[in-house]
Amino acid sequence: LGKPTFPGEVSFKVLPPGVVTGLAWNSLGGTHLFIETVGQPEAHSEKQGMRITGQMGDVMKESTSIAFTVAKIFLAKLDAKNDFFKNHSVHMHIPEGATPKDGPSAGIAMVTALISLASGLSISPKLAMTGEVTLTGRVLPIGGVREKIIAAKRAGVTTVILPDKNKRDFDELPDHVKSDITAHFVSLYNEVYDIVFPSQAETSKKSK
Amino acid sequence: LGKPTFPGEVSFKVLPPGVVTGLAWNSLGGTHLFIETVGQPEAHSEKQGMRITGQMGDVMKESTSIAFTVAKIFLAKLDAKNDFFKNHSVHMHIPEGATPKDGPSAGIAMVTALISLASGLSISPKLAMTGEVTLTGRVLPIGGVREKIIAAKRAGVTTVILPDKNKRDFDELPDHVKSDITAHFVSLYNEVYDIVFPSQAETSKKSK
Amino acid sequence: LGKPTFPGEVSFKVLPPGVVTGLAWNSLGGTHLFIETVGQPEAHSEKQGMRITGQMGDVMKESTSIAFTVAKIFLAKLDAKNDFFKNHSVHMHIPEGATPKDGPSAGIAMVTALISLASGLSISPKLAMTGEVTLTGRVLPIGGVREKIIAAKRAGVTTVILPDKNKRDFDELPDHVKSDITAHFVSLYNEVYDIVFPSQAETSKKSK
Repeated sequence: LGKPTFPGEVSFKVLPPGVVTGLAWNSLGGTHLFIETVGQPEAHSEKQGMRITGQMGDVMKESTSIAFTVAKIFLAKLDAKNDFFKNHSVHMHIPEGATPKDGPSAGIAMVTALISLASGLSISPKLAMTGEVTLTGRVLPIGGVREKIIAAKRAGVTTVILPDKNKRDFDELPDHVKSDITAHFVSLYNEVYDIVFPSQAETSKKSK
Repeated sequence: LGKPTFPGEVSFKVLPPGVVTGLAWNSLGGTHLFIETVGQPEAHSEKQGMRITGQMGDVMKESTSIAFTVAKIFLAKLDAKNDFFKNHSVHMHIPEGATPKDGPSAGIAMVTALISLASGLSISPKLAMTGEVTLTGRVLPIGGVREKIIAAKRAGVTTVILPDKNKRDFDELPDHVKSDITAHFVSLYNEVYDIVFPSQAETSKKSK
Repeated sequence: LGKPTFPGEVSFKVLPPGVVTGLAWNSLGGTHLFIETVGQPEAHSEKQGMRITGQMGDVMKESTSIAFTVAKIFLAKLDAKNDFFKNHSVHMHIPEGATPKDGPSAGIAMVTALISLASGLSISPKLAMTGEVTLTGRVLPIGGVREKIIAAKRAGVTTVILPDKNKRDFDELPDHVKSDITAHFVSLYNEVYDIVFPSQAETSKKSK
């Protein structure tokens, strides 16, 4: 009381591999959040798989399962030698731990966090993303574009990745909202990868 | 609001193996949806089996279980050498992730998605299907024929597969609804297979 | 509406092994239904056992468990060399998938479906049965005899197996209801077996 704490206010200067900035919203406004993933070596196959925390609702829990499958299949095509998920267990958490969260719109961020973790490649803290992902890597539209863009800018984000089907929502925003932000629009997950890891983009051609 | 987004509007130009177009309806109208399946190699038999996502209700969850059994038995008769389900785990998802879905009418589409996945054969995006399937491959009638046909045409579908017991429902549709659509009526699953994979139809004689 | 579709109207001309015709009823009337079972070879013992689908209530789920035990014990006495349940997983389904079902009266039909599956012997589609079974093979009375007999005749059934304790219910039916139907009354499961598989009846003496 008297000292408001903004959700997500504690930010990373450099994101460790496995962490990506997502965007959420509700009727009160938008916020940025971090999808955090870490891996632990596991010798026994029955211990592999993914554990999740962060007060996720049923839809979001299913999103983590979809994201795990998409990430493993994408990585297998991208770099067949990468056996990270074959000998690690993964833990995915979305702070803050007491805040209930739900919905499918963190899909592409979850996939990206997992690929970042497995490949050891960091993601820029000035990049945020939102979009539902399907099992075959299609990116479906989400709600709250205006609120999410405002939250992204408040968090110092300069580049956002949005579903192609939300392009009209973005284009119709007032100029003062969409100023100072670069938006990319995607319809397939491999386009997300190419934006997030531009130095690897050629490599990802294989996985298309 | 004012800018309706039709569920499943983001479509495939070519469907990857494992994906098939289904048809759903409720009191508000019909829609097409994609049954998506992907497989992942698994060395350990305890990791095999099928994981499902997509906010499915109890009846639909049972449908996935029935479809998995029917697909495995059909494939074993069709091509005894195909050991896909013996060394892969399968994930089935029905976007959109936040939309609750239920009912048994995606049965034949689920079986077809799994057979497509295991055999590596793609399905035409202009073909859609609806019908409950039983454990022995009988195809039972479904509801919402009118709404589903309208949704199929809106999605660019030109051929539909319907249960034989729904033939009268289709025949009684106004001409403007059933124009531009070819309907096949089936009472056993092997008839679905012969329509979906015509070049393989001779092979399927074995599995009747 | 105006065009009633009777549940289970899509019938078999020849029943595959593992399928038997049961009889159900509620306050609106009776219906016939199919108990469907299929087996899949399983090398690993932890994958064996029985999976069930068909929106069964708690009592019916317990019935499937009782029937599985009774069938395995009966088969072991009948034909000690039959190792079907030792190297197959079983799936039992009762269409239609969206119709909730409950009660113990499908007991003898479930046992019979499983024995048919394991022995590879088909059951006549003109034969239907209803009766609760206990773990030691006793057959207990059921409700809705009148509604079930009417449903059996509508489905083209000519022979029914009923619990001995329901004989008076049957005898008291009007002649026009019980005409054209042969009823057998049983108090132990082995009597069911002898009626269903008459050519095997001598063999079953061993299991009494």
